[in-house]
Parts: sequence; C-alpha cells; structure tokens
Amino acid sequence: MTSSWVPDMDPASDFSLANIPFGIISTPNDPEPHAAVAIGSYALDLKVLFASADLTQLFPEIHGLAEAFSQSTLNAFAEMGRAVHRQVRAGIQDLLSTTTAHPSILRGNTSLRAKALLPQSTVKMHLPMAIADYTDFYAGYHHAYAVGVMFRGPDNALQPNYLHLPVGYHGRASSVLVSGTPIRRPVGQILLDAKAEPKRPVTAPSRKLDMELELGCFMARGNELGRAIPIGEAEEHIFGYVLLNDWSARDVQTWEYVPLGPFNGKNFATTISPWVVLADALEPFRTRGIENATELQWYLAEEREDNVFDIRLEVDLTTAEGDTTTICRTSSKHLIWSFPQMIAHHTLGGCPMRTGDLLGSGTISGPGGVDERGSLLEMTEDGKKDVLLGGMDSRTFLKDGDTVMLRGFCGADGARVGFGACRGRIYGAASR
Amino acid sequence: MTSSWVPDMDPASDFSLANIPFGIISTPNDPEPHAAVAIGSYALDLKVLFASADLTQLFPEIHGLAEAFSQSTLNAFAEMGRAVHRQVRAGIQDLLSTTTAHPSILRGNTSLRAKALLPQSTVKMHLPMAIADYTDFYAGYHHAYAVGVMFRGPDNALQPNYLHLPVGYHGRASSVLVSGTPIRRPVGQILLDAKAEPKRPVTAPSRKLDMELELGCFMARGNELGRAIPIGEAEEHIFGYVLLNDWSARDVQTWEYVPLGPFNGKNFATTISPWVVLADALEPFRTRGIENATELQWYLAEEREDNVFDIRLEVDLTTAEGDTTTICRTSSKHLIWSFPQMIAHHTLGGCPMRTGDLLGSGTISGPGGVDERGSLLEMTEDGKKDVLLGGMDSRTFLKDGDTVMLRGFCGADGARVGFGACRGRIYGAASR
Repeated sequence: MTSSWVPDMDPASDFSLANIPFGIISTPNDPEPHAAVAIGSYALDLKVLFASADLTQLFPEIHGLAEAFSQSTLNAFAEMGRAVHRQVRAGIQDLLSTTTAHPSILRGNTSLRAKALLPQSTVKMHLPMAIADYTDFYAGYHHAYAVGVMFRGPDNALQPNYLHLPVGYHGRASSVLVSGTPIRRPVGQILLDAKAEPKRPVTAPSRKLDMELELGCFMARGNELGRAIPIGEAEEHIFGYVLLNDWSARDVQTWEYVPLGPFNGKNFATTISPWVVLADALEPFRTRGIENATELQWYLAEEREDNVFDIRLEVDLTTAEGDTTTICRTSSKHLIWSFPQMIAHHTLGGCPMRTGDLLGSGTISGPGGVDERGSLLEMTEDGKKDVLLGGMDSRTFLKDGDTVMLRGFCGADGARVGFGACRGRIYGAASR
Repeated sequence: MTSSWVPDMDPASDFSLANIPFGIISTPNDPEPHAAVAIGSYALDLKVLFASADLTQLFPEIHGLAEAFSQSTLNAFAEMGRAVHRQVRAGIQDLLSTTTAHPSILRGNTSLRAKALLPQSTVKMHLPMAIADYTDFYAGYHHAYAVGVMFRGPDNALQPNYLHLPVGYHGRASSVLVSGTPIRRPVGQILLDAKAEPKRPVTAPSRKLDMELELGCFMARGNELGRAIPIGEAEEHIFGYVLLNDWSARDVQTWEYVPLGPFNGKNFATTISPWVVLADALEPFRTRGIENATELQWYLAEEREDNVFDIRLEVDLTTAEGDTTTICRTSSKHLIWSFPQMIAHHTLGGCPMRTGDLLGSGTISGPGGVDERGSLLEMTEDGKKDVLLGGMDSRTFLKDGDTVMLRGFCGADGARVGFGACRGRIYGAASR
C-alpha cells in the first residue's frame, strides 16, 4: 500500500489512503453543506477541488461530479452507482498518494491545497444523506439470543421465524442524527411496577436509556415498485457503511411494543457516524458470518460465504466527570444475516427502496462475556447487574451527562479503514 | 350554503363548494405535476389560475402561493399553516360561488375558465405530498378488539397498553401510492401449515391478501427534535385528510411479525385517495369518539370531547367480471384515539415530525355486524367464513383482478365533503 503525502498522517488514523470515506461538510469559507472525503486528520473539500481543478483527465467518462459534490447530501453521487464510486475513490486515492500520476493537480498546487485540504477540526459535519426510509434489522444473533433468554428463557429465546428470515422493522427517518448531536433523554409512558394489576403507567423521563451498537448501510440505488432485488444483485445497490447507535428507552419500549413493535422507545434519536465508508473500501475485510444451519429460502441463498465484514467495534462510555471506559469490544462479523440478504428480503414483496435508504444491522454482540455485548440491556441483564466504569463509577443504564462513542475500523496500522467517531451525549429530559 | 356556478354540479358529488380539497394534477397542456382543487366533476388548475389572474386582492397578505401551486407536491402550501389554508380555501370558495364578490377573475373570464377549469376525467392525479415518514396507528377499537379475540380469545383481546396509549408503528413511506396505482400481489415467506413442527416456511405469492379501511392525516408543520407537540396545539399542525387502504398480506404478517411488528406484510403498498380534504372542511362534522374509561395521562387529555369526525365510509369490491358489492359501511367516528392524541403521543419523547408526514388511523370497523368491518380478516374470521358478493361469487381474501374502492363523505346532498375514490386493482404476483 502506498502512503499519502498529506501532512501528519497518523498510522492509527481511521482515514488512511486505503479508506477515502465520503461526507458532507460546511467550512468557515463556505457555510453551505457540500461533499468532502476524509484523509488522515484532514477533509478534502470536493466542491472546492472539482470547481478549481480540471479533473476530466481523471474521470473522462463520468459527468456531473462537480454538481453532485456541491450538493448538501451525497444522494446524487450515491445514485451514480458502484462503478462510479469505485473510479472516483481510485482517482482521489491517486491524487492523495505519494506516487500520484497527477502531481500538478493537487499535490504540487499549493494554493489549491490551502483551499481544499482543511483540518477536520475546522469543518462541521452534517448528515451525509437525505434518508428516505430507515429500516432496522435484528441480525445480531448473540444479541437476539441474549435478549430472548432474558424475556422468554433459553428454550424460547429465538422466535420461530428468526433463523428463516432477517427480522426487521421500519424505523424513523426523521430522527437519524449525525454524530455529535445532543441526545435529550426522552419522556415516555412507563410502568414503574410491571407486576401490579391493573397496569398503572406514568409519564416520566425514561429510567432505562440505552445504546445499541450497530452497523448501518446506505443504499446507492433502489428498485421499482413490485420488482424485488435479487440477492446476487444486492451488492450493486449498496453505497457504503456507517456506525449506528440505535438509542433505546427500554422502559418505554417494554410497555408500548406489543403487538406492533418498537415506537417511541426508539424514535427519539438514532446517531450515525458522519463519514460513509464506501462498500469497496471494506471489500478486503470480508469474512464468514454466523453459520445458519437452517435451509434457506431460495431468495436468501448467497453464492459467497464471506458475506459480512470483520470490523473491530468498540464502545466508550465517558461520564460527566470525563472518565472514559471501553465497555464493549466486538466485531461486525457477528451477524447471522448479511446486508444483501436483508435487501433481498426487504424487497421480496415488491417494496421499493430508494437512494439514501438506511438499513441498520441490529445490535451486534459477540459470543463471549459481558464486555462483548452491544447494549447495556445485555451487559446489565436489564438493570440487574452493574457495569463497572473507571473512577469507582458504575452504570445500569445511561445517566444525564454520559457520552457514548462507537468506534470501528479494520486493517493494519497505516492502512486502516475506519469510521471515525459516532458520538452522542445525554442531556436531561425536557421540562413539561 | 351557496352553490357553485361550475357546470354539471351533481348533488351527490364529494366535491361540493363546501369541500375544496387540494391535489396534484398533470394535464394535457402541462405534464409537470402541479396543484389543483376539485369542484364537482372539474379540477381547478391552481398553477394556471395563479399565473393568469391577479389574486392579490383575494390574498393581500399571503405571499408565495403562485410558486407553491406550481410545485409537484402540496408540501410548500401545507407548510404555510392552517391560517393560510383557511384563507385560501375561503377565497377559492368565493371565486367558485354563484355569489362571488370577484366575478371578473374567473366566473366571467371565459378564456381563463377554458384553461383552468378542466374535467377531472382529462387530468392525471399524482401523490399529493412528498411523504417524509409514514406512521400507522391502531386506533380503531372494534378492529383491535375483533382481531384480538381471534388470536388471543375474548379475555385477552386487547393488550394491557391499548387503552393507555395510541399504539402505532412506523410504516413504509416509499410504497404509499396514489389511488389507481396497480397493486401487485406480494410474494413472501408464509407457513402453509402453521401447526407443523419444525416450522417450514415457503416463499410464494400471498394467499391472504387483504385491505384495511383507514383515515389518513397529513401534517402541515412538524416540531423540532426534542420538543413535543402539546395536545392543545396539535390541530394547528394538521393539513388535511385522505382515505387510506393499508393493503396487508396476512399470511406474511403472521409469520414475520414477532417480535418487531409488521414488515413485508404491509410494505408492498398503501393506497391513498388523491385529494387532501383540508382540516377546516371537516370541522362541521365533529363528533365524539369511542369512550375510553381509562384515566388518561396528562399529555393525552383533550379539552374537547368531539375529537373525531363522523365520515360515512364504504368499501366496494369489484370482481374481474365487473360485479360490484359494497362489503362494508361504517364511520370514521369509531376511533378510540383522535389524531391530536396520536400526534401528542408520537412526539412525546421528542421525535421530530415534518411537513408531509402521513398518519394512518388504523383499520376502522363499526361495532355491528360483518358488514361494518374494515378488513376481510375480520369479515371472514381469518378466512373461515365467506363474504358473499353479488353474482353468486364470494371471497375469503382478495383474488387477482379484484378492485377495492374506499369511499368516504359527510354532509347533505349538494354540500357534501368527500374524498373521491381510493382505488386499487390486484394483479398477479411477479414471476420469479
């Protein structure tokens, strides 16, 4: 792997030359949100780059990039399709490489570098996509099993459908937020005494505010109403991936969710990391997911066995006092369904997907101990046990002032492909 | 009530002068979708009207109407708020009235009438709003009870939360379709033998394709993330209403829906009527909903008791042979939760709503016999009994070639406020 001439490249950076994730920034000079890529600790402003330089020699057959990169979302670029994403990523990798074939465009152009290569600390990140519909799946087998044991015992932990289809539900697109957006503790209906009869709910701030560690997938292109996406074509419909924290108010969820599923327990906030890691950047990190001995329906059968990614995932909890503890270390390989399987299932009945649709994997937990579990619900067995933090502190669920940060990367130092931070801090509930 | 000078006003028309619903049309002269109102059997083209006539005397304080009405959705108009909708509807009622104070603008302007007043049979209707998020509630008490008895017996028909909060789930915005769009029978995973162990699903066209009679509500304005809409302000956030058919594949739904709710059983299609009846047009038809003896949480307590509308609702089923039977007659008053209660609950935890959000009431069934039930699931007790049609035919669920039409109106002949047809015809499943 060649290296980049960009200054201050840290070998531990998520944004090596092997990555080149896309995002939406605004800058001191241009407050209108527009496209960029991340490289090391810098953002390369693609609106400035494509407006200032003649890049037709790099992308002679691709039209409309300058316009796409001046827009406030990546949707137009995503819609151009995987072949374009691949060429543009490769072209930008060349421009940023020490061995660039086009040194005059950027590397040797001091004035353009000053305008287009901006420290990430000076730019503001925005939601990368206009999200049409958001669907959250439940493909983290160990999470589904652990939660099932908690609520129904080990003999009925998984519902009969779980191994036959990727269970999922429609989420709320309007409350998908970019990393850093403050999270207000939701008020909701909760049962303080779940066993009392008759049931007497109260309306109060959630006492069981939780996080969920997930991988998110953005759609590049959708399908027509009534026409399913065959599983063999699903990869071509994927734009890229983000980390996703599906904040959950467990007490609200427990009371509301029968029979139609989670609603206010989830729809107050979902945080995603700001840089979309292109599907191609993750290709070298494929591996096999969790084996499913069930005979799959034809539309879910994949040719390839390495259908998930082995991304190292971590969750940090930082208290209001500033003490940080890594409470979870796991991998995105712990999925029993792949994103192509989710897409094939989602569209089986003809449901149209669109550019910018977001799919969540479901909470990802490892098969091991408490420190591999992707939610506090699992770590604390629904509040029965404490998670110990540094500084003599502990948690069952989240406190006001807590910050949760998801991190994820793959690859060796100097060539990491990572997501950057997916962070949210909890603020007290709104007053009535 | 004054009458309209528009030709051929049928006293039984849904679109009397008392109505003035808004929709999006395209016409032989202008294929770009744009705004119109319905009056009798005509559409009044608002793009043509506002471009051709000086209407500042009618709306001296409202700006941007001409631009709003030339757009392909009603979102910009909706976002202007209830006070604007009220004035614009009143102004258009004046223009179309026999006693108009401004006869020179339209009534006496033969060339403008020829251009702007178009037979509805010559225009094409489009989806009226860009739908941001779609949420479907479950507020039809008699439906929830009947379905509960079927699946859990009379003692546990309603879940413990049902009388405490408006149960709802996030639906799929991408498959909300305007009336007339063909409905393809969905393929899905189903259990042919629900009792066999182990469970052996097959992937096949749904054998239990059903309709659901609902009222839909479009949001005019939303709320900021983290700030609930108080119930006393919810009416100001409502734009108007449509009929809504929440097509359902019962066999797909039964297998998939635990534990996260309906997914592919619903997301293949939802049909709405094309004309949005403004909230103000329904004001005279308020009545009390179903009494709920539960002590309500403070955020759900309404001052007014007449919190629902008494809209006559009917469902026609037309076979491929052309025989039409009215299989359901009921009223939209059979709701135990009002739309303001749904909105207050939806936003309680801070979930942001946006202009163009669509809320479904849930299936509306009356308290009486089989012919008051808003779904075939209820009419046939999940396929155990036949619904008799004209022409010696019968149904348990829908057959290919069937057309389902919802209708709804209130008011006396000559002053009806109705929705027009909400129609969809079933086509055979896509081949593999």
